[in-house]
Amino acid sequence: MLPFARVTIIGLGLIGSSVARAVQAQMPTVRLTGHDASPEVRERARAIGFCDDVTDTAGAAVVDADLVIFCVPVGAMAAAAAEIADDLPADAIVSDVGSSKESVLTALRGALPDATIIPAHPVAGTENSGPDAGFATLFQGRWCIVTPPEGADPTATERVAEFWRRLGADVETMDPRHHDRVLAVTSHLPHLIAYTIVGTASDMEEVTQSEVIKFSAGGFRDFTRIAASDPTMWRDVFLNNKDAVLEMLQRFSEDLTALQRAIRWGDGDTLFDLFTRTRAIRRSIIEQGQDDAAPDFGRAH
Amino acid sequence: MLPFARVTIIGLGLIGSSVARAVQAQMPTVRLTGHDASPEVRERARAIGFCDDVTDTAGAAVVDADLVIFCVPVGAMAAAAAEIADDLPADAIVSDVGSSKESVLTALRGALPDATIIPAHPVAGTENSGPDAGFATLFQGRWCIVTPPEGADPTATERVAEFWRRLGADVETMDPRHHDRVLAVTSHLPHLIAYTIVGTASDMEEVTQSEVIKFSAGGFRDFTRIAASDPTMWRDVFLNNKDAVLEMLQRFSEDLTALQRAIRWGDGDTLFDLFTRTRAIRRSIIEQGQDDAAPDFGRAH
Repeated sequence: MLPFARVTIIGLGLIGSSVARAVQAQMPTVRLTGHDASPEVRERARAIGFCDDVTDTAGAAVVDADLVIFCVPVGAMAAAAAEIADDLPADAIVSDVGSSKESVLTALRGALPDATIIPAHPVAGTENSGPDAGFATLFQGRWCIVTPPEGADPTATERVAEFWRRLGADVETMDPRHHDRVLAVTSHLPHLIAYTIVGTASDMEEVTQSEVIKFSAGGFRDFTRIAASDPTMWRDVFLNNKDAVLEMLQRFSEDLTALQRAIRWGDGDTLFDLFTRTRAIRRSIIEQGQDDAAPDFGRAH
Repeated sequence: MLPFARVTIIGLGLIGSSVARAVQAQMPTVRLTGHDASPEVRERARAIGFCDDVTDTAGAAVVDADLVIFCVPVGAMAAAAAEIADDLPADAIVSDVGSSKESVLTALRGALPDATIIPAHPVAGTENSGPDAGFATLFQGRWCIVTPPEGADPTATERVAEFWRRLGADVETMDPRHHDRVLAVTSHLPHLIAYTIVGTASDMEEVTQSEVIKFSAGGFRDFTRIAASDPTMWRDVFLNNKDAVLEMLQRFSEDLTALQRAIRWGDGDTLFDLFTRTRAIRRSIIEQGQDDAAPDFGRAH
């Protein structure tokens, strides 16, 4: 049995358009409606055809939905939710795909106080953005974290979980606050660091930007992929998961200072011990199917 | 005309064994001799067969060489060079593949004061180590930086450059000191940051290591590849390019503090501006053929 029959996606960028494509591929009888605030994106979405219908207003998109998924930057959730408040059916479930969950829950609850809200976060993506960047297999074998608020209806939670399993994801349920701390470590801090180092490297007086680009295969290029992620999405993530990000950043800075001291004092053992420990983490990630075992991410040589 | 007829490789790990395989593939008439300090590595090298001969001593490996390439960690260069001092032919050219060039030049000159020394650094590699990890196409389309010391014989420099071009690399010539600053930015700092963040993430009390591994696809896993690089090699790089690394680290820390402040004060514009700028750098790297244009490094989805 399908968990939902009429799904509405608000926001048709990389993630929204991937959800749409995955629904078309995995649950072809589901009626799919889409909306995006941008007229250009709506036009592209209609041309590509990953929804049965793309509406010009958010309200029109939700009138007969049994699941509404917000796929907009986390800072845009409150305004997007307010736009559907008058048209949302009483029995529809509202969900989202945002990278911070406490702030999104607050935003959705504020705009839709009577709705059944079951936030979720598929831990998947690429550095590209927009309706052309999505693809149907993005969620295959990836985790989707469902974060029901306290007291949420278990049936509603299970329907959202089943929806993601149908798209190929493995589902984990987590408290929103804990989600935000886990993702601060595994996603938000790495993005912040990548953005920083790419900024630092491109802004040196002695080493030119063209040299940085030319010799980027020494390691730097790996960081530029993450640092090419959507600027609006990531600005919003940092502002909406501020406390956890700042706390993880503080730990990182302390560890960096310790390494800096080890280098300054020529303490090779400290460096060697850390570098041996980190190598083992990589092995675990590959063993658990969370990354490609091929050297260099399988890049062509 | 071949730049060299009898090539000796000291150190048969990822890079040394890749050089050997590339020579076999591209210059099959060259006589290749190898040596490694480890008996196990010598045994593997003989079994794989990427050298015509693998000798038990370094001295025996160089007796008739016209090019000797040290492919050992930069901290091991001085000792490795000392081992061949008595057997090195007077007209042989000595080179290496180390990631720091001023320290290597000093080490090789100290041990081999009368030799013709033309250091080089192929900006290529993977996170794997050892004689089984090498492959013949590792240097195809990658840069190799040749760093002749002041007053070096231009013919010797050109022969080393031609050797690398034959292996598929593009060659750039650079002053050793400038090399060390460029690589501190494009390679050493990225490795240091990756090692640090992987250490930080695996050492949290509230977020377990198994959660970090499970949800690593949010960005963290990208860093674990670099942080899986050879511990000995990288310990030596940081200790041997200390000044440049510490200087770049200082710049990075300043930039990180500025971003931290922007997050704390909710300054979204500063974040957005940086994230837009870094996205452009990624585009340049792809346009210049220094990384794969496929999303997510071309990982399978």
